[in-house]
Amino acid sequence: MADPIAVNPQHYRLVFENDRVRVLEYSDGPGDNTGTHSHPDSVMVTLSSFTRRLRSGGKEVDVQLQAAQARWLDAQEHSGTNTGETPTHCIFVELKEPRPDAPAADGHGSRLGPAAS
Amino acid sequence: MADPIAVNPQHYRLVFENDRVRVLEYSDGPGDNTGTHSHPDSVMVTLSSFTRRLRSGGKEVDVQLQAAQARWLDAQEHSGTNTGETPTHCIFVELKEPRPDAPAADGHGSRLGPAAS
Repeated sequence: MADPIAVNPQHYRLVFENDRVRVLEYSDGPGDNTGTHSHPDSVMVTLSSFTRRLRSGGKEVDVQLQAAQARWLDAQEHSGTNTGETPTHCIFVELKEPRPDAPAADGHGSRLGPAAS
Repeated sequence: MADPIAVNPQHYRLVFENDRVRVLEYSDGPGDNTGTHSHPDSVMVTLSSFTRRLRSGGKEVDVQLQAAQARWLDAQEHSGTNTGETPTHCIFVELKEPRPDAPAADGHGSRLGPAAS
């Protein structure tokens, strides 16, 4: 488990944390990259529109989102690049409790990137 | 448990739901009111700045928040009024699993309104 804040301290900031959630703020600019890091099951809320390429285990996916959207993110490990012409700004609400049906919440059929809706 | 969408369908919209979370979008205008409704433990992400008065069980609290903030919300029942001069626009990430230390996640010392930080 590669913590986003440890791997990419220039992009990820801890907003707050309690027993149930950890909330991170992500910000970058066009062309910026993240090193490979892990997310638990999370909800991402976009504060800007952005375009990104995510990579994990040989797979790539391009993601384009508008501001003020909320998307589910299955637990996953990935790296990313801001491939657009605008900053990326978003909030991650990480769920700290284990997934009820899968105590080890990694790699169980996760989709790369956010869910479609 | 008074569901925010059932009580205030003009203000609350379901964004998505899965086994772990339900995500709601809230929007209103100055002077708008909500009827009394319940939230489970939630994270609120603000998409606008806003000023509100929340009421619950004879208590009142005034809340002023900037856009692009994330706040913890203890499970609570309240009603509210947009007391500012701008729309309120925010996302609620509701946690559907029971709080580990309190299977009945209502009224156990909840703070009215969002946590201070």
